[in-house]
Amino acid sequence: MRFYTEYLIFQTSQSREYINITPQVRLVLEKSGIQEGMILVSAMHITAGVWVNDAEEGLLADIDAWLEKLAPFRRDYHHHRTGEINGDAHLKSLLVHHEVVVPVTAGKLDFGPWQEVYYAEFDGRRPKRVIIKAMGE
Amino acid sequence: MRFYTEYLIFQTSQSREYINITPQVRLVLEKSGIQEGMILVSAMHITAGVWVNDAEEGLLADIDAWLEKLAPFRRDYHHHRTGEINGDAHLKSLLVHHEVVVPVTAGKLDFGPWQEVYYAEFDGRRPKRVIIKAMGE
Amino acid sequence: MRFYTEYLIFQTSQSREYINITPQVRLVLEKSGIQEGMILVSAMHITAGVWVNDAEEGLLADIDAWLEKLAPFRRDYHHHRTGEINGDAHLKSLLVHHEVVVPVTAGKLDFGPWQEVYYAEFDGRRPKRVIIKAMGE
Repeated sequence: MRFYTEYLIFQTSQSREYINITPQVRLVLEKSGIQEGMILVSAMHITAGVWVNDAEEGLLADIDAWLEKLAPFRRDYHHHRTGEINGDAHLKSLLVHHEVVVPVTAGKLDFGPWQEVYYAEFDGRRPKRVIIKAMGE
Repeated sequence: MRFYTEYLIFQTSQSREYINITPQVRLVLEKSGIQEGMILVSAMHITAGVWVNDAEEGLLADIDAWLEKLAPFRRDYHHHRTGEINGDAHLKSLLVHHEVVVPVTAGKLDFGPWQEVYYAEFDGRRPKRVIIKAMGE
Repeated sequence: MRFYTEYLIFQTSQSREYINITPQVRLVLEKSGIQEGMILVSAMHITAGVWVNDAEEGLLADIDAWLEKLAPFRRDYHHHRTGEINGDAHLKSLLVHHEVVVPVTAGKLDFGPWQEVYYAEFDGRRPKRVIIKAMGE
């Protein structure tokens, strides 16, 4: 069995940003030398997410508006008694999830034609980490 | 380590359909000969989902109505400037997620009594694929 | 390859409760002796969830209120024709998801500073199980 782990660091200029990290995941797979297995891509923070979906700017704008509607910024979250003001970012993270597992077959990400891995930042402007861990043979 | 991969293809007659694929997952497990490990079940399209929940028709109707409420069909999604009209299907996919990882113990899906794997089609009437990848010993 | 599996049983006193199970996951990892790999933590019931987020009481209150808003208790779910009254618990489970996969590196849960694993009970007051399955070397 082979295991190969890398960490990405993002410091976005916006509070919310959506970054296509498929090239980085592909690079980790190459370095791992794995032909068959799985890759876990997981945010290491609780105000960020990871998803697989389309690389289309209009859709990203739709997703952003939709997340703000379902998990809106509000001043009065209980969480804010701690001094934080990012309660909405926690809820957005729960909604989209913080991780994906990508299948690897014949040395490739075994994706359909439109699948891309995104890092979703919900509380940016500071360093945030993502782990990419490949496991297989 | 053993790895075993199969692809299912669905072409639903409805735009939205929910299909119990537990028998197919179980068959993949049998063919793999794996006694201990995990099975990744993942939609290969960005307008479909995979979940584990109850095989109960009333609940499926509730889920469908609920998804339409939280991620409704609308004409005015930004994504539709590409010519698509399936923006809601992308959001529904994000909401329920596109994959599950099922534990395998003693050669069986290690499920509780009511857990069943569903393929959720949100933009059907054309061929869509699901990957089932077993990994273990 | 090593595989190590444990089952937790929860019988909450409240209908909805959120329990930090990070210590239990860490203990399973220790017992497994695994240095590199992944741990699947998965609810074995369809009215419960598992997530990774902050251990902060205010946030847990926010999450609870938010889930009740997005997936409210209602008498008129179709699912209730079966005699059940827990339709909302199924929807809450779908929303937050029933499983997480935790990376293991150098014999530790490879988490960021604030990540904790929670069991989310949405229909409690009876025994419910969670599987923790470690896989690696």
